Amino acid sequence: MNKIEHIGIAVKNLNESNDLFSKLFGKPHYKIEKVASEGVNTSFFKVGENKIELLEATKPDSPIAKFIEKKGEGIHHIAFDVTDIEAEISRLKEEGFIVLNETPKKGADNKLVAFLHPKSTNGVLIELCQDIKK
Amino acid sequence: MNKIEHIGIAVKNLNESNDLFSKLFGKPHYKIEKVASEGVNTSFFKVGENKIELLEATKPDSPIAKFIEKKGEGIHHIAFDVTDIEAEISRLKEEGFIVLNETPKKGADNKLVAFLHPKSTNGVLIELCQDIKK
Repeated sequence: MNKIEHIGIAVKNLNESNDLFSKLFGKPHYKIEKVASEGVNTSFFKVGENKIELLEATKPDSPIAKFIEKKGEGIHHIAFDVTDIEAEISRLKEEGFIVLNETPKKGADNKLVAFLHPKSTNGVLIELCQDIKK
Repeated sequence: MNKIEHIGIAVKNLNESNDLFSKLFGKPHYKIEKVASEGVNTSFFKVGENKIELLEATKPDSPIAKFIEKKGEGIHHIAFDVTDIEAEISRLKEEGFIVLNETPKKGADNKLVAFLHPKSTNGVLIELCQDIKK
């Protein structure tokens, strides 16, 4: 794992949260992106070499809607940048981690992504992400 | 805010979680530190320019013990590095954020720290931290 790529935060209302986090960081978000396959609208802030990704559900059965229903707004996941996502999935499976999708899928921000089940990672939902080569 | 300084993760058993996160990152923690005033044992991993701080309660009334009782193990807070913590506290108060301790206190890793109440920050417990000048 090379670095923390971003921290994902589940929010109820993206516009209101964009205002809130703009005040927190003293600067606005730099991008909005809809990820239809995941049922989310996302917004990105840059802080140092990392990003903060706000996630708003676009439909009631979106994983973000279910997360907020159960736990309220708050930190949803940590994403780590990896160079070779398939090699990293194999390594982590051998170490005993539970990989939620063994075939990486297309996520926001031009990435291939895979998730580790929180019950194998101390309650932390972990995303692996690799840039899609152009 | 300059960058994410660390992400704090509440764990039940620091030894077991050190093993788990060593497997995750492919390298061991580099430091253990007890913060008696907060009732925690901490352990640090380096990932890119950030740190991951594992937090284990050392007494039943520690904030970490209460967090785990209520929410289970998982991400506890995000800490942002600031250059001047008192100026940042004043700025954030004016923006409407609730600062839990307006006088910064000594935290782990030679830092002055202050926390923002999650109810003013979309459910995210945010720590501000500034290096203590030697």
